[in-house]
Amino acid sequence: MATGTPETARTLLDAEIDEQPEAVARLLDREDAGVARVAAALRAAGVRTVTIAARGSSDNAARYAQYLLGVRHRLPVGLAAPSLVTRYGAPPRLHGGLAVGISQSGRSPDIVAVLEAARADGSPTLAITNDASSPLAAVADHVIALHAGPERSVAATKTYVASLAALALLSAHLGGREDLVAALRAVPDLLARTITGARGDVAALADTGPLASTLTVGRGYNYATAVEVALKIRELTGGGAAAYSSADLLHGPIASVGAGSPVLLVAPTGVVSPDLAELAGALRDRGARLAVIADDPAVLAAADDALPLPPGAPEELSPLVAVVPGQLLAARLAAAAGIDVDRPLGLAKVTETY
Amino acid sequence: MATGTPETARTLLDAEIDEQPEAVARLLDREDAGVARVAAALRAAGVRTVTIAARGSSDNAARYAQYLLGVRHRLPVGLAAPSLVTRYGAPPRLHGGLAVGISQSGRSPDIVAVLEAARADGSPTLAITNDASSPLAAVADHVIALHAGPERSVAATKTYVASLAALALLSAHLGGREDLVAALRAVPDLLARTITGARGDVAALADTGPLASTLTVGRGYNYATAVEVALKIRELTGGGAAAYSSADLLHGPIASVGAGSPVLLVAPTGVVSPDLAELAGALRDRGARLAVIADDPAVLAAADDALPLPPGAPEELSPLVAVVPGQLLAARLAAAAGIDVDRPLGLAKVTETY
Repeated sequence: MATGTPETARTLLDAEIDEQPEAVARLLDREDAGVARVAAALRAAGVRTVTIAARGSSDNAARYAQYLLGVRHRLPVGLAAPSLVTRYGAPPRLHGGLAVGISQSGRSPDIVAVLEAARADGSPTLAITNDASSPLAAVADHVIALHAGPERSVAATKTYVASLAALALLSAHLGGREDLVAALRAVPDLLARTITGARGDVAALADTGPLASTLTVGRGYNYATAVEVALKIRELTGGGAAAYSSADLLHGPIASVGAGSPVLLVAPTGVVSPDLAELAGALRDRGARLAVIADDPAVLAAADDALPLPPGAPEELSPLVAVVPGQLLAARLAAAAGIDVDRPLGLAKVTETY
Repeated sequence: MATGTPETARTLLDAEIDEQPEAVARLLDREDAGVARVAAALRAAGVRTVTIAARGSSDNAARYAQYLLGVRHRLPVGLAAPSLVTRYGAPPRLHGGLAVGISQSGRSPDIVAVLEAARADGSPTLAITNDASSPLAAVADHVIALHAGPERSVAATKTYVASLAALALLSAHLGGREDLVAALRAVPDLLARTITGARGDVAALADTGPLASTLTVGRGYNYATAVEVALKIRELTGGGAAAYSSADLLHGPIASVGAGSPVLLVAPTGVVSPDLAELAGALRDRGARLAVIADDPAVLAAADDALPLPPGAPEELSPLVAVVPGQLLAARLAAAAGIDVDRPLGLAKVTETY
């Protein structure tokens, strides 16, 4: 396939972005029964709180879980501070609350340490990892394997989306919601259509020039998407990018938005749509250049740069699809800057932090 | 005093930064007995988890609480997602866990809503606010008033440091720790010395030119400081600034650091000092321009730009002092760019988000 020219050379990152529909489909096939058993065990244990240890993209999956498990199950979900365990020797007392570790490699010692401490304290533990034979999986009571296949690009893409799918499947089984399982089964097709459609859209946007200090904004379920896209842009391009919830942006950092400032709104249809629409107005008043990821044509029509999503994802699953144009945009911006996206600026794939 | 020239005109922000020692001293005097009663009530209630609702700088005070209450009291501290209450109609079930709202004005409807929901659910609630007659104070079982005096500059400074002091005082009384109360009483003097010393240091740094896309980095207790300083830079200057824990930075975003990239390390002496030292080495290998806030002369000696702190603050109180050079740096960068720091780019002081 590759002809050797930059235009057609396939990167690992491209390939892994393209594998996302397949990865999610495989997860749903192979883990459905196992996740149902995990959900039954957690219900039996009477879990009342959830603490998630994760870093990088996995931390953004944890942000998604905060809304997913909050809205549907009213569970308070906290993001762990691993250094409390590894540096301060003071693991939180969870009193039977669930500790979850999310890690692509399952080999980050600090994430393993948080689960070890929770287990020693008698609390149930769950590992969500792409490597079912990893130390993280070994230390956990329950494991959801991502089945995403090897991820070799430094920037996580398919394991991120698979982590979201794993969490959504867990929520579906915790709530006995066949409708959500059915909606999840439609996600691989939505992902495939998004990947195909968005490549051209992001190329048009990225090729207008570098987007210095982009702000990415979402709210509710898609706050996670905004943070993940900012991380992708920063990792892959070395450029500045910062993420905010629409409410937090209004609390101060909107000051940094002036004429021509690039802002990426993650705005799939949902409960928070009016908030995003109001923010879009305020940003336009400041002269910002607005790129918008959305499924509603009316929302897209008001954007300077429209990044359309296919309709059909319920709000609670929209982050699985809405991240894709952001992944592709980050990759395209990096390519335009001559950066090797598979090894951007000397990063290692697995970072062992303590 | 003001002669009308930019050099000598005093801004509200300057004045409020200077009022910080006095604000903390007043809080300690006026709230000590009240906070002791709050601590006794929380102990009697058997509080096992803490959920904090806050935005902007107050959210960074919540990050400090995550370490303060985690290390000393082994309490899991989660940051609330207010939209779960205000948008999704799904307040978390706290089962007797403490809900804390931190808000300078006490008038942010979403923060009030989180406390209202917790109270309705039978969980204890605590307001930390500069306005003891605010809606937030009215809805809470317990109130810690900040006594910082009116804060008129858009960028929070003295109410941020006072919020940290309030949390530290609460921790001291929860743990019956007279040593921590005594150390807190030394903070006003440390603040005054830091303010005096750092003004010249930040001027030398800021006047070398704009610091585009600064990264701020801390770990443990001072992760909050890194996030707060990045917020100050973004609010006041409109420039890009992003904050990371040292561990999260290594997980990917260090890719954005190249030759000459400005990085601000918040590195007071503490348990995480070796982590910051290791990171400093990695950043130097990439050619970054390192500004360092620290009390240890050896740590400062390795910096391109040293922002010294007076010695004497224990690690758990160091965030109260270490934020000051960051506040002053943000103000100086803004002044150098000709920005009115008291009304940067049309922001309002009180932002009402839902």
